[in-house]
Amino acid sequence: MPGVGPRSAERIGLWMIQKKEAKAQEIAEAVIRAVREVGVCERCGFFAESTQCAICSDPGRDSRLVCVVEQPTDILPVERTAMFRGLYHTLGGRLSPLDHIGPENLRIGALLGRVREEKPEEIILALSGDVEGEATANYIGDLLEQEGARTTRIAQGLPAGLSLESADELTLLRALRGRTAFHRSNS
Amino acid sequence: MPGVGPRSAERIGLWMIQKKEAKAQEIAEAVIRAVREVGVCERCGFFAESTQCAICSDPGRDSRLVCVVEQPTDILPVERTAMFRGLYHTLGGRLSPLDHIGPENLRIGALLGRVREEKPEEIILALSGDVEGEATANYIGDLLEQEGARTTRIAQGLPAGLSLESADELTLLRALRGRTAFHRSNS
Repeated sequence: MPGVGPRSAERIGLWMIQKKEAKAQEIAEAVIRAVREVGVCERCGFFAESTQCAICSDPGRDSRLVCVVEQPTDILPVERTAMFRGLYHTLGGRLSPLDHIGPENLRIGALLGRVREEKPEEIILALSGDVEGEATANYIGDLLEQEGARTTRIAQGLPAGLSLESADELTLLRALRGRTAFHRSNS
Repeated sequence: MPGVGPRSAERIGLWMIQKKEAKAQEIAEAVIRAVREVGVCERCGFFAESTQCAICSDPGRDSRLVCVVEQPTDILPVERTAMFRGLYHTLGGRLSPLDHIGPENLRIGALLGRVREEKPEEIILALSGDVEGEATANYIGDLLEQEGARTTRIAQGLPAGLSLESADELTLLRALRGRTAFHRSNS
């Protein structure tokens, strides 16, 4: 288990055996149920307990906005911002020729299918700021432009709390290149 | 000296005494000369050996662009990006009420004077991504808008190389809010 080394594992094991209140039976059942019942949303690829995930089946979400992320786990930090109320599409990874991951290994075809069918007003590419994330964003952006879909990408620049001095060169270059008009509302 | 503890200081001291090639005399003179001759550029506040710094007195720089930074040392990372060819203006700090640093303690009046006199086409606010940097940018941006000067700020968002999962909430919020249209040239 990630983050649980031999010492922690021993401690958890002993805790479960010694404390009757630890409810080992309930934990065991929850683990089995999670593995059995949590599947993949057939629309967006997020974790789901039925054919569609909780986000896709929520009528309160704005289906005109689709945010494209690499992994289902990337949806969680975007949700935590409480700013985005649209739907998601997970690719299941990013283009990585060295690892033999090409477009056919990602859910890109499914994304294009959704764009044709659902005709969202905006598709937001929210991929990593590294080389492979960049390459994937460019590849998908080109395809979406050919479909005539309005495509945006999340801003690249200075992260919150960082001083200019501590920023690396590439981040600063992108922050300068991506500079925006000053509006009081930016605050 | 920053980064030089007692052990390092001892090692440097012994090295200077023992090695005649260490040119202690030259080092001593360079230190004295640096302190005596390096002053402050009267135009932008950067380090200078005469009344104006090397950047301000370089005719190859584009005087229509002025990049506003907090400290003279912030000019160095921007220069390293090799992207910006305009001039600078250093504030000498940022607004910080807790440290009793108000607008009158910063070179804001000098900035407004320059804007009126030199009439730059664009003023780029390149301040820190923290609360005080934000507050300073908003304060100066308002003043510049009143002067009718075109004001921009460097982009805030996902730094180079960072995955969505590792980004903090505020950074991700700003990256989403500041999203830009996809163009192939973004690559």
